[in-house]
Amino acid sequence: MARTRFMLDEDQIPRDWYNIAADLPVAPPPVLHPGTGQPIGPGDLAPLFPMELIKQVVSQDREIEIPEPVRDAYRLYRPSPLYRARRLEQALDTPAHIYYKYEGNSPSGSHKPNTALAQAYYMKAEGVTRMATETGAGQWGSALAFAGAMFGLDVQVYMVRASYDQKPYRRILMETYGAQVVPSPSTDTEVGRRTLAEAPGHTGSLGLAISEAIEDTVTHPGTKYSLGSVFDFVLLHQTVIGQESIVQMEMAGEEPDVIIGCAGGGSNFAGLTFPWLGRTFRGGRKYRVIAAEPEAAPSLTRGVYTYDFGDTAMMTPLIKMHTLGHGFIPEPIHAGGLRYHGMSPLVSLLKENGDIEAQAIHQRSSFAAGVQFARAEGILPAPEPTHAIRVAVDEALAAKAAGEPRVILFNLCGHGNFDLAAYEKYLDGSLEDYEYPAEAVKEALAGLPAR
Amino acid sequence: MARTRFMLDEDQIPRDWYNIAADLPVAPPPVLHPGTGQPIGPGDLAPLFPMELIKQVVSQDREIEIPEPVRDAYRLYRPSPLYRARRLEQALDTPAHIYYKYEGNSPSGSHKPNTALAQAYYMKAEGVTRMATETGAGQWGSALAFAGAMFGLDVQVYMVRASYDQKPYRRILMETYGAQVVPSPSTDTEVGRRTLAEAPGHTGSLGLAISEAIEDTVTHPGTKYSLGSVFDFVLLHQTVIGQESIVQMEMAGEEPDVIIGCAGGGSNFAGLTFPWLGRTFRGGRKYRVIAAEPEAAPSLTRGVYTYDFGDTAMMTPLIKMHTLGHGFIPEPIHAGGLRYHGMSPLVSLLKENGDIEAQAIHQRSSFAAGVQFARAEGILPAPEPTHAIRVAVDEALAAKAAGEPRVILFNLCGHGNFDLAAYEKYLDGSLEDYEYPAEAVKEALAGLPAR
Repeated sequence: MARTRFMLDEDQIPRDWYNIAADLPVAPPPVLHPGTGQPIGPGDLAPLFPMELIKQVVSQDREIEIPEPVRDAYRLYRPSPLYRARRLEQALDTPAHIYYKYEGNSPSGSHKPNTALAQAYYMKAEGVTRMATETGAGQWGSALAFAGAMFGLDVQVYMVRASYDQKPYRRILMETYGAQVVPSPSTDTEVGRRTLAEAPGHTGSLGLAISEAIEDTVTHPGTKYSLGSVFDFVLLHQTVIGQESIVQMEMAGEEPDVIIGCAGGGSNFAGLTFPWLGRTFRGGRKYRVIAAEPEAAPSLTRGVYTYDFGDTAMMTPLIKMHTLGHGFIPEPIHAGGLRYHGMSPLVSLLKENGDIEAQAIHQRSSFAAGVQFARAEGILPAPEPTHAIRVAVDEALAAKAAGEPRVILFNLCGHGNFDLAAYEKYLDGSLEDYEYPAEAVKEALAGLPAR
Repeated sequence: MARTRFMLDEDQIPRDWYNIAADLPVAPPPVLHPGTGQPIGPGDLAPLFPMELIKQVVSQDREIEIPEPVRDAYRLYRPSPLYRARRLEQALDTPAHIYYKYEGNSPSGSHKPNTALAQAYYMKAEGVTRMATETGAGQWGSALAFAGAMFGLDVQVYMVRASYDQKPYRRILMETYGAQVVPSPSTDTEVGRRTLAEAPGHTGSLGLAISEAIEDTVTHPGTKYSLGSVFDFVLLHQTVIGQESIVQMEMAGEEPDVIIGCAGGGSNFAGLTFPWLGRTFRGGRKYRVIAAEPEAAPSLTRGVYTYDFGDTAMMTPLIKMHTLGHGFIPEPIHAGGLRYHGMSPLVSLLKENGDIEAQAIHQRSSFAAGVQFARAEGILPAPEPTHAIRVAVDEALAAKAAGEPRVILFNLCGHGNFDLAAYEKYLDGSLEDYEYPAEAVKEALAGLPAR
């Protein structure tokens, strides 16, 4: 009988993170200082991040060693399983073979601890006592709260108001780990107070919450800033996912034709796909690599590839990426982790170079795939990876229509136990289906910094 | 470095369930027909259960083969991991070694699918099209809903009203798997309507919900009754937990001195401990085996060992067990799975014979242990196993006080992602702490059937 679950032993946790910068065919554009317009140096980032993380961003080493205390914490949930979705294949009656890497068995329920634990470790090692961060759906915030508990650091979380209201359980999970959580926009920061004065009912956005967390960081001694996506070192730490998946696909005796991840800031997408892309860049075969993003915030499929701010209040450096404009506030889709105006610069560069594709998915269509998946495979997916499931199912059906085999691999980056209010809406037919917000994007793009 | 997680491969899923009846030093008392007072035969159970399950109840075979389709479904989450709780040991500064078997990575988040999948398989094989059941906290109901989806059966769930109101997410999870869920007492059954007429605000109980599910079964053709605890075949199916833990403890090179499980109806407790107890009965060493139950429903520590009904409406056969009286309605503790007036007859027999111990735990004390565990180990426990954690922590502290090593093994039978409202109450200090309800129990015991 074909295997269902491919497990690795804890001594097979990768010893290094994979740094795609070493293999990129084109060098990434520099990050620019918003005041001078010149490339930033390590000193510009030092107020925000531990020096070891800054070094990782500029490193050209292909392999960056994972510190032993981080590997030790990874043992709590890594290596994660790779599944062959045999029951989903049967339900679809497809000749395709579908595999998924499952990150939902981590304590906080997603892939996010892979970088949260690393960031907390480096903070602790450099004498930081408190971490400030933002969170959308709460998956990142609960991962950092977990990591703070593991390494003995205080954690302050600015949680996007839309999710704070929709998902109280995520907040309580963070508090159970010992973190402080406030809704963003909050009255704790200048930018939050200013926003609330202008728009008292503001539902928040990741971009705005980032601004609050950065302001908190620079105004609180002993605090540094932690973030859950977009930035190069975050993507780096997630590459344990893809590295494990390579070993596990070898166990399965197959190689993927198509590799899929959902993409908001880009971290779980990069985590699965970068190690595979690295093989291609080093002379291996080419895979179809697809980023699945929401129709409500389709930065890769509809955004402009240009320099923009990572946050709403224009406090971050300027990064070259696919963006819908830093002033763009996505509709409150339930995939809160995908509600972001931009995309990681590394993922954007790969898209620009034609190394990856992107597809935008409607909310109802993603939930339909999520319910189909749950009924076939048992696991309830988070709303974010239902976008990847949608693309995987469509690929499997395309293989069936073409009457050809196809090996599909996607990242199931988290479970949906905290998202059942959204599933209820889907089941009772009241789930909203947002169209591409062309006018709002046009307006936001008009506000881009001149270059 | 000491290992953290002991994993087995999918071909190490047990091939048989372990039937403790083959090894019991004392034969279990018969189950009696409530009308005749005579031992019941297979024919009496046939309207409720598939014949293969009835055969398992009377079998004296030590090993009962797990059908291949059930083992195949187990592959979705089994074998489950065994963890060494090194971080909890450090936090407690104890010389004890603490291990836990973790069942929370199953699709529905607890050990319950181990029997749900088996029951669904046998139903399907015997032509049943619909399963009716009760659920307390919803862990059993969501497991059966999952199993129904795996084997293509309709599922009707009577959910105890207290949990239905406290835990809407569990209901939605069941509905996502395709099940029908109604609060109990409901208007769907005669016993439900009668109860609501007498007490419109009734918060329900497991005993009452059982009565509703049984009435539903006997009044709907094609339907059979499925239950998540108490009955012998349910405990049998859970023994995959303990069998795996024996192999994993061998991997760890240790043998437990103390083995702990929380006990409501007894299924997760039995699942972990029966295979270990069987070794003792076959001439091996004796382990301290402890059942952790709630102070609000302490059947093993305060109940009477006698014949009683399994349900409130006196529709089940009479079973000899530790009971607080079938009319006893426990306070609405958040460990809904432990809100039961009785205890599995097999577990009761072992307690009566001195093969196991029992401890009753207060609600706040159990949550305190749960939060301590989450901050040390990352996993958020369900309220039920926080009772086992409390006992494990106390044992580890006792070992520290005595300055002696001790190997502790407990069953972490589910995650607490659906129980965060209870954690919030614990964190803000508003969680209730119910005392032993002496008067209510006295009254309920006065209503026991005469023998």
